[in-house]
Amino acid sequence: MDIIVQKYGGSSVADTGKIKRIAEMVSKRVKEGAKLVIVVSAMGKTTDNLIKMAKEISASPEPRELDMLLTTGEQISISLLSIALNEIGIKSKSLNAFQAEIMTTDDFNEARIKNIKSERISSELEENDVLIIAGFQGITEEGDITTLGRGGSDTSAVAIAAALQAKCEIYSDVDGIYTVDPRLHPKAKKLKYVAYDEMLEMASLGAKVLHSRSVEIAKKFNITIYCGSTFSNEEGSYVMDQNIEQPLVSGLSIMDNQTQVVITNLPVDYTLVNKIFQKAADENLNIDMISVIGNSKSLNVSFTIIDEKKGPMDKALSNILQDFDQYHVHYDSGYTKISIVGVGMRSSSGVASKFFKALDNIPIKLVTTSEIKISALIEEKDKLAAVKSLTDIFEL
Amino acid sequence: MDIIVQKYGGSSVADTGKIKRIAEMVSKRVKEGAKLVIVVSAMGKTTDNLIKMAKEISASPEPRELDMLLTTGEQISISLLSIALNEIGIKSKSLNAFQAEIMTTDDFNEARIKNIKSERISSELEENDVLIIAGFQGITEEGDITTLGRGGSDTSAVAIAAALQAKCEIYSDVDGIYTVDPRLHPKAKKLKYVAYDEMLEMASLGAKVLHSRSVEIAKKFNITIYCGSTFSNEEGSYVMDQNIEQPLVSGLSIMDNQTQVVITNLPVDYTLVNKIFQKAADENLNIDMISVIGNSKSLNVSFTIIDEKKGPMDKALSNILQDFDQYHVHYDSGYTKISIVGVGMRSSSGVASKFFKALDNIPIKLVTTSEIKISALIEEKDKLAAVKSLTDIFEL
Repeated sequence: MDIIVQKYGGSSVADTGKIKRIAEMVSKRVKEGAKLVIVVSAMGKTTDNLIKMAKEISASPEPRELDMLLTTGEQISISLLSIALNEIGIKSKSLNAFQAEIMTTDDFNEARIKNIKSERISSELEENDVLIIAGFQGITEEGDITTLGRGGSDTSAVAIAAALQAKCEIYSDVDGIYTVDPRLHPKAKKLKYVAYDEMLEMASLGAKVLHSRSVEIAKKFNITIYCGSTFSNEEGSYVMDQNIEQPLVSGLSIMDNQTQVVITNLPVDYTLVNKIFQKAADENLNIDMISVIGNSKSLNVSFTIIDEKKGPMDKALSNILQDFDQYHVHYDSGYTKISIVGVGMRSSSGVASKFFKALDNIPIKLVTTSEIKISALIEEKDKLAAVKSLTDIFEL
Repeated sequence: MDIIVQKYGGSSVADTGKIKRIAEMVSKRVKEGAKLVIVVSAMGKTTDNLIKMAKEISASPEPRELDMLLTTGEQISISLLSIALNEIGIKSKSLNAFQAEIMTTDDFNEARIKNIKSERISSELEENDVLIIAGFQGITEEGDITTLGRGGSDTSAVAIAAALQAKCEIYSDVDGIYTVDPRLHPKAKKLKYVAYDEMLEMASLGAKVLHSRSVEIAKKFNITIYCGSTFSNEEGSYVMDQNIEQPLVSGLSIMDNQTQVVITNLPVDYTLVNKIFQKAADENLNIDMISVIGNSKSLNVSFTIIDEKKGPMDKALSNILQDFDQYHVHYDSGYTKISIVGVGMRSSSGVASKFFKALDNIPIKLVTTSEIKISALIEEKDKLAAVKSLTDIFEL
């Protein structure tokens, strides 16, 4: 018996009419002989509305309680979808995270899945045609409810697929993975195949199709992810172990709201620098585009964070550096990170020079590269010009 | 250390502003030295809105899934209240039913609490000033989520108070228990004391102040319930083992939407009659005002149900009576049950004659009495006239 894990995003279940349509689609697959595990996000703007209420009460809501609040969104959509399926005669049951035993770390708001006790899911699947599992949420060993961070339902779906050794299909209002965000570049091309590594770079660079943790899990367990549009028959994209087409550059990613943090005049003490990065990791402050430049007298450290983490980052730095007084921290906001990604880069030279040629007239603040990626930090106002010349030169 | 269990109804937590006010009130009690367990209902119209969505999908939503849906309402309010308390420096934690281990039967939509593992609540109370527990919901041994029926949060609160041997305070937008519903009779008097038995009769007769199951539990464990208004300082009412004031008649209750079910020409077989009542109990169809009249040739059975149970009742009857063909079932809707209640009746005579005198000009379809209650089934259009003469004659 084929088991298929499908995930539907929030816009696919935005109202009861859409939920009924999803139920009809699922019913067809059941009649074709499949057992399905469906992971759904919260309906439409539900999560935003819940956050809004929490913020009316507290500027920084207690993290455990915020997760308790936000997970209701998915519980609403799973139960409604199960009602819709039972209504049309498909035997189905909804499970939230504690019932599906999706065990996570206790990092509230950004927890990571540790394991899924798939025996429970498997035995429920024997009695039902469809299981509907709440995405985005998990549970700690102590029984506290956690969330996996925005977009975490993708990760739930892939982790469940890995636990069941099942196929994974992710449906949203986008019909696949594009070379560039089509809202920025309407002529963007759809990619039929994307390698895990490319997708990881693109996801971590702000491509909104897949949560990056979901791609890590897919890579680890070699789960092919199909990304398609919920309500269209157009063929989507496959994220898999390699990009069969091996283009030089597969995609271009954009990440707005970047702040550059520059710490100057630190003592020459690399354990201190490690401490800064360690502290940032402990506090879930993702830092990026790191550069450390030193001489015999002092060290300068620079990295980027997203704008909204400026406050927590400043608090973390003051805490670590409280015993030093010579250093200086400077924050520069309003930047965009633009990156090209492609596994083809590994075996080709000349990509970097083409990249810089394309950005000839645009001031670049910082550059970082990996084996399959080149990123530049530019001012937000130069974004569209940069997208245009990069898509032209790399034929995206 | 005093432990106080407080319950706030849906209108008391209808928006984030009100939730903040509750947090302030709770904070005062904590500063006076109390530990509090707060039970809250869903915010304002949340439950109604969730039911509306379910009904858009299915006329009779799968009961297990409906409970999965409805319990999100309380999870939203407990987490928001906990965020509000933490925001003002009161250490608090929210627990839903599976965390608080509120074990129930698996009668979805109308489950009954079997037991509460109070060790967990007690140990959490040692680490926190306030625990906030989701009302209305429970969990089965299998880990399925249940609800206790409309108004079930009262029952949650009293059951928790019983488990902790704590005081119990129920707050709503009504400032106590009245002799008659003040919306029907503006001159209704507030009762300072109400005996459990009186309250049970009044609750089961439609008085909306307390869920009747909550009074049963309070009686069993001798928990005094204080009923007061959330945002007023006016003294409320106490429901306790006896009514210190012992009035002849304490209150008048009204229950609309009554349907009389009359089954005529049944064979003379009392086990069949028992089967009918047993089936009704199994299906959670509350039947009331039962009368059975027989002669040597046939039996006539009559009872009342609420209008909305007409469909399920008809189904249940067809099922039981399928082997008989002589009988006839007749449904008569549009009735109101009007009752007077008072522990004083036990020791006084003449109450019934006063009751019938008051209803002199009103056609009475059926009458039932208990030790502390007299009820009459009348047409809905006669309701206000009946309320007026009964309140006059019994000085309510």
